[in-house]
Amino acid sequence: MSEFTLHCFAQSGNAYKVALMLELAKADWEPKWVDFFGGVSRDPEFRKNENVMGELPILEHGDLHLVQSGVILDYLAEVLGLYGGQTAEERREIWRWILFDNHKLTSYTATLRFQRTFVGVPENDVTAFFEKRAIAAHQVLDQHLEGKSFVVGDRLTIADFSLCGYLFWPEEIGIDFAPFANTRAWLERIKSIPSWKHPYDLMPGHPLVKA
Amino acid sequence: MSEFTLHCFAQSGNAYKVALMLELAKADWEPKWVDFFGGVSRDPEFRKNENVMGELPILEHGDLHLVQSGVILDYLAEVLGLYGGQTAEERREIWRWILFDNHKLTSYTATLRFQRTFVGVPENDVTAFFEKRAIAAHQVLDQHLEGKSFVVGDRLTIADFSLCGYLFWPEEIGIDFAPFANTRAWLERIKSIPSWKHPYDLMPGHPLVKA
Repeated sequence: MSEFTLHCFAQSGNAYKVALMLELAKADWEPKWVDFFGGVSRDPEFRKNENVMGELPILEHGDLHLVQSGVILDYLAEVLGLYGGQTAEERREIWRWILFDNHKLTSYTATLRFQRTFVGVPENDVTAFFEKRAIAAHQVLDQHLEGKSFVVGDRLTIADFSLCGYLFWPEEIGIDFAPFANTRAWLERIKSIPSWKHPYDLMPGHPLVKA
Repeated sequence: MSEFTLHCFAQSGNAYKVALMLELAKADWEPKWVDFFGGVSRDPEFRKNENVMGELPILEHGDLHLVQSGVILDYLAEVLGLYGGQTAEERREIWRWILFDNHKLTSYTATLRFQRTFVGVPENDVTAFFEKRAIAAHQVLDQHLEGKSFVVGDRLTIADFSLCGYLFWPEEIGIDFAPFANTRAWLERIKSIPSWKHPYDLMPGHPLVKA
């Protein structure tokens, strides 16, 4: 059995945030597939025993059973001694971007992708609303990345893992990344790390669409 | 000049999360009104000099200039020595609920309130979408609060300040809180703290509607 077990599924950008960190850190980890699209996370037993929030990922490490990608990233930065902040100021800056990611960037981007790619609805007022908000969040990130290699401290941190979680599926999100040159360069920088893998190559789940 | 200056406006639940903490902690603080509805936070100068995210609140403490309510709450718990976690497990549990609040509870609830009360749109597919998601998030919180006095560790913490930020405006949100008995009892518990104040009594901004 591996040291870390990540309950996940291939289509989850929130799980990918953690999977990518574990992979780049060369941690001893294994993914455990959860049938999210089959409704497992809506199951009252899952909510009672696993996570009242009905969400993935879940990380098992010894007796610990952690949920919320931001909490897991922060925990792993501490136990692995990698990708965390080196000063109080850096740690606040990292949390600032993880919160922005949760509240806005991932929230709007992932919902837009879910509606378009997995629910498969035609374009409507809801997708238009989320597209507008997603683009506004991407403008913030792109502006912040001007002149920077990474989000905080000019090196790879858990803030990058959080923010990039959904961004290797541009065609599933369906927004135009052409105006976001800083963001595109930052994503290429992450992709060029030798052990980088696309979410569909890192987590199980047999997606119909391979990017 | 007070020790803490909070840049805020009366209608901001995210600012209220911090204002309520400062007030209950009897900190030496003062609010500084920002003309959010006049568009200050969309001003390129504000984004360049104050917060690239275009968001409030901002807390000034000495030379520090902090943004994101979750970062500010965590910082204040440390410097005031109040309302934080006492163990690593409690600190993770607090972050877990602050992240859930940012990603779901506040995100959906505040957007619904904004559309209904400040944009003033008639009910439409977007409000219906957010209402459904807000109710799902409130079900999670209510289920978690079953048998508990507060969100983490059975005492008031920054997780409570974050989650309650928008919830003293039920009529502006326009969802029915009747099914959420645990949440209603928890909100009454917070309101019964002697120095508790409603957001419209704690922050400046002359709202048209007084709750």
